[in-house]
Amino acid sequence: MAYAVASANDRLSALGHSLPRVSADPRYADYRTVDSAIHVSGQLPYQEGRLVAEGVLGADLDVEAVRPLAVQAVLNALAVAADAAGGLDRVRVVEMLAFVASAPGFGDQSKVADAASDLLVDVLGENGRHARTAIGVAALPRNSPVEIRLVCCRA
Amino acid sequence: MAYAVASANDRLSALGHSLPRVSADPRYADYRTVDSAIHVSGQLPYQEGRLVAEGVLGADLDVEAVRPLAVQAVLNALAVAADAAGGLDRVRVVEMLAFVASAPGFGDQSKVADAASDLLVDVLGENGRHARTAIGVAALPRNSPVEIRLVCCRA
Amino acid sequence: MAYAVASANDRLSALGHSLPRVSADPRYADYRTVDSAIHVSGQLPYQEGRLVAEGVLGADLDVEAVRPLAVQAVLNALAVAADAAGGLDRVRVVEMLAFVASAPGFGDQSKVADAASDLLVDVLGENGRHARTAIGVAALPRNSPVEIRLVCCRA
Repeated sequence: MAYAVASANDRLSALGHSLPRVSADPRYADYRTVDSAIHVSGQLPYQEGRLVAEGVLGADLDVEAVRPLAVQAVLNALAVAADAAGGLDRVRVVEMLAFVASAPGFGDQSKVADAASDLLVDVLGENGRHARTAIGVAALPRNSPVEIRLVCCRA
Repeated sequence: MAYAVASANDRLSALGHSLPRVSADPRYADYRTVDSAIHVSGQLPYQEGRLVAEGVLGADLDVEAVRPLAVQAVLNALAVAADAAGGLDRVRVVEMLAFVASAPGFGDQSKVADAASDLLVDVLGENGRHARTAIGVAALPRNSPVEIRLVCCRA
Repeated sequence: MAYAVASANDRLSALGHSLPRVSADPRYADYRTVDSAIHVSGQLPYQEGRLVAEGVLGADLDVEAVRPLAVQAVLNALAVAADAAGGLDRVRVVEMLAFVASAPGFGDQSKVADAASDLLVDVLGENGRHARTAIGVAALPRNSPVEIRLVCCRA
């Protein structure tokens, strides 16, 4: 008799999330591979075709408002990675670059990125632990508050 | 009788471009490889040793003015990649990071990056399709409006 | 009779530096590998658990003040890479992303990044020569003036 081991998709569901469908941009690829590395294009917090919010941290948005957006962006990146790797259980995350739209003097980029990091570890366990760089930037496409770019590989 | 298949250099010429010569910086390398990946140093829109323009999008420059600069920056990156890969026809692009100097509230970084993405696909075809992350930043070296960093590999 | 060849650690000592201990963040990894590549998490200029300085270039800090901070950040990255590669002599640096907190109009990010690049080449020689991208950003975690992210591999 085997123990029931929850899949990454089960853990995602238990957290109230599901893998979104990511619509491709005609001008570039959702991901590209080189050797084992899967480079995923930068993801904004789109949900069902709509950018969830706009704004800048330290100006018109605070950390608590943007943490769910970081989760949405990393879910979009995970969806691409799962497609590339052949399923969510086969994704290992290598590196996250987390870009946070920041007013001068705002220094809590890490607290925003933590929400995305926690999601990855909660869903993928050790395969979700990644090298990370969090950066505050002047502005992001469509005035998104956050953008996340992953490099993954197959677990 | 063989069909004449245009080379990447032919397509580049047909678009009115040629591969520039990129002068190396003594402190770092134009590119470095690890396994199959070719990491190209970030390229500014230098042309014949001169930075073509300075400024910030949403402040003193608009999208149409900067799109040709994004093309020049990516041509410089392509020149390095062609050198590394053994010719332009042997370059496959994996990932672009496109940094656009942006005033707060400017959200059209993607339209700038599109000019560079289009050039890559026009010249290299499927080998030019890449994962992409476009980011708006406070300032770039020498007040360049745009900087492009590629990871490539051999096609 | 063998010639005495200075080790990378000897060269580091001769420059008055030593490899710091980098304390891991529980939420993510100091580094992750894919194939031969070692992706090191972004490093701030922490020294003995304390961020050495805060501020923005072109506003409250100048280049000379921040160059030693860039060195401290890259030493932290080197310490992680040495741990991953099995010793400092086994580290080859592939790519540096150097993020510099910059006021609008500040364009000397390269002079800050040069301090980190010089340290790598002084300590590692040809193995320290890297592809580089220097970027000016609105703000960094904890208001750090500089953050450095390396991709390395085993020499």
